[in-house]
Amino acid sequence: MGATLVEKIFSSRCGKEIEAGDVVMAAVDRAMIHDITGPLAVQKFREMNGTEVFDPARIVMLFDHQVPADSIQAAENQKFMREFALHQGIHNYDLREGVCHQVMLEKGHAAPGEIVVGSDSHTCMYGAAGAFATGIGSTDMGFVLRFGALYFRVPDSIRVEVNGAFAPRVGAKDLILEIAGSIGADGATYQALEFTGETFASMPMPGRMTCANMAIEMGAKAGIVPPDAITWEYLKGRRPDVRPFTLESDEDATYAELREFDAADLVPKVAVPHNVDNVVDVEEVAGTHVDQVFIGSCTNGRYEDFAEAAEVLGDRTFSEDVRVILIPASRDEYLKTLRAGLIERFVEAGALVEAPCCGPCMGGAFGLLAPGEVSLSTSNRNFRGRQGSTEAGVYLCSAATAAASAITGEITDPREV
Amino acid sequence: MGATLVEKIFSSRCGKEIEAGDVVMAAVDRAMIHDITGPLAVQKFREMNGTEVFDPARIVMLFDHQVPADSIQAAENQKFMREFALHQGIHNYDLREGVCHQVMLEKGHAAPGEIVVGSDSHTCMYGAAGAFATGIGSTDMGFVLRFGALYFRVPDSIRVEVNGAFAPRVGAKDLILEIAGSIGADGATYQALEFTGETFASMPMPGRMTCANMAIEMGAKAGIVPPDAITWEYLKGRRPDVRPFTLESDEDATYAELREFDAADLVPKVAVPHNVDNVVDVEEVAGTHVDQVFIGSCTNGRYEDFAEAAEVLGDRTFSEDVRVILIPASRDEYLKTLRAGLIERFVEAGALVEAPCCGPCMGGAFGLLAPGEVSLSTSNRNFRGRQGSTEAGVYLCSAATAAASAITGEITDPREV
Repeated sequence: MGATLVEKIFSSRCGKEIEAGDVVMAAVDRAMIHDITGPLAVQKFREMNGTEVFDPARIVMLFDHQVPADSIQAAENQKFMREFALHQGIHNYDLREGVCHQVMLEKGHAAPGEIVVGSDSHTCMYGAAGAFATGIGSTDMGFVLRFGALYFRVPDSIRVEVNGAFAPRVGAKDLILEIAGSIGADGATYQALEFTGETFASMPMPGRMTCANMAIEMGAKAGIVPPDAITWEYLKGRRPDVRPFTLESDEDATYAELREFDAADLVPKVAVPHNVDNVVDVEEVAGTHVDQVFIGSCTNGRYEDFAEAAEVLGDRTFSEDVRVILIPASRDEYLKTLRAGLIERFVEAGALVEAPCCGPCMGGAFGLLAPGEVSLSTSNRNFRGRQGSTEAGVYLCSAATAAASAITGEITDPREV
Repeated sequence: MGATLVEKIFSSRCGKEIEAGDVVMAAVDRAMIHDITGPLAVQKFREMNGTEVFDPARIVMLFDHQVPADSIQAAENQKFMREFALHQGIHNYDLREGVCHQVMLEKGHAAPGEIVVGSDSHTCMYGAAGAFATGIGSTDMGFVLRFGALYFRVPDSIRVEVNGAFAPRVGAKDLILEIAGSIGADGATYQALEFTGETFASMPMPGRMTCANMAIEMGAKAGIVPPDAITWEYLKGRRPDVRPFTLESDEDATYAELREFDAADLVPKVAVPHNVDNVVDVEEVAGTHVDQVFIGSCTNGRYEDFAEAAEVLGDRTFSEDVRVILIPASRDEYLKTLRAGLIERFVEAGALVEAPCCGPCMGGAFGLLAPGEVSLSTSNRNFRGRQGSTEAGVYLCSAATAAASAITGEITDPREV
């Protein structure tokens, strides 16, 4: 019987044929911990009588949610984590590199066929590199830190097949919002989304990251794009230890479901408050007054997103009625954006460009909203209260839609500015 | 009898001869309110039955302390202030321009002979432009918003005379720390510091701003540099309504005290925890481990400070053990720094460059310290708990000393790297 991509990864890891539904103890290739969930993971590790981590070289630590420390408690947590890293010999990127998921990919900590866990829900983003990657809780992470392995119930897969080319100013974010709206916030619970079809086959890595990132927004355990020449090109230099190989699902693999989409049909999409699957065409909410626009996060904080925003902006300025907050997802993305002259352009136009971090995405550190305010955000979640007041509204969209709306001060179709 | 600069300003404003010690009601030329102290000032204004401010064109509003909003309360305060500005017709720079004092000067809101008040203690910085400028409480500001004037007890002046040229990597910040150490934290209470001598006469505006800014750290009501060609050159374009005129103290003016300093004798200085007047030569604390370095604030967040830091940095990188946080004080300073290629250089070297705001200076929004940690900061106050934990220590210094220490990870004499 044929196997899905996910089944193949687990079969390879376990040395025997694994099927969806099997419960296996599998070794992990890499584990990622950050400033928010890390301290609890370390505490759990110690409660399991952990003294030395299973393999410091397989653990990646960094700080991105509350940086630079936004409270004394955050500073203490980071100090605690730094000391743990130093004592255990774990590499700690600290607060220098940016948002965990972006850094994990760009530093080569995920590759095709690998199993990667992280104590953050959007860990599924590494599926863009052909890894099985999933977010786990801090107790599970405590176990991983100690033993380097974890029980997994191998998920069955939904095959998401997308064909067709995007229209101008429509892209991966609009696609994944469309998919989320169609599948629903709990439509893929504990399943994997296998992203296939010609649209994905030709999609550059940034778009694949955007889509894999949001698999969790449908409840999925993982999202995965079959590795191909684009994947291997991305990994070149980042993972000199890995040679390209073939990893693809069998033609007769069993899927829980097949979902087909046509990229050519897509228009700019917006997820309206307060759920990610409340997805509408931008024209349905066009004209809504916007108080804050955020372009950034692991979902859409890459150079390509800023290039798209800059293309929409042109030589105009942002509305004075909008706080425009732009945050490249990593130091590399920041430098690419800066060297292309875009940071200068954005600041001239009235934006605030902050150092790489999660920023307003999860409403912890800064960029919070007052009651009644509206945020347009390229991030991944618009739950009530996610970016401040429970009486504020967060709309999710692409960088192009965000930029267009930042210019006009109201939700705006990027094809119309 | 001769008059000091401050006496002349009040005499001119009141239309009669005014002496130090006189209590006068004087009209103010400009009043500045920001996100932290503004809401209380508006409340006081309303308690005084204020409905319309005295003159919206003379009031400047901006947000810098908690931007982008670091709590829902901060977001609500800013929303409240925005609505007040809109209703009253007050110009609101909002969060787009940067730190209040820098923006006030660069947008031309203070000029020689003017009386400017701000609801922030470092309002005295505008003395760099030859204005009498002082920080006032929110109740006083409520009164100013309503009536456009305030009672002042005209301060007597300490004449601070500085001669000699700075040695390399020694500058205005070292000088004002030396002066603060010599005069003491309460040595100039309710007095004005008149900064004179050849060192000030040849000092560019950024250094004058640094010195006038810290007058309050000696308890002074104001710090003022006699306006000269450098002042008028700075104001050109910023204040087309003001023509250069002569404003200087009389030779036979009566000063409370004369303090003389020789700039050529100066070495890099550091104010050690927990008071601004605990000033020592850098060599006395050299080798102290540093956890965080902050270059920024109204005191030292200008292009010239970053150029100095970049000169010290060269093509090296910052220590991985230090969080290096750089924040230009305004959008203009940010763009100057960016266009000179310095932001790229700093980020390559491992720094975080944030959008213009007060940042870690007053420990409100981000960049807080855990117990036991040490911060080296180019800002103006090192009071216990100012940047986070009361068990952390803040050392104040120049941008050159900060950069040198950020490279080595310990307090370092910038002449020795």
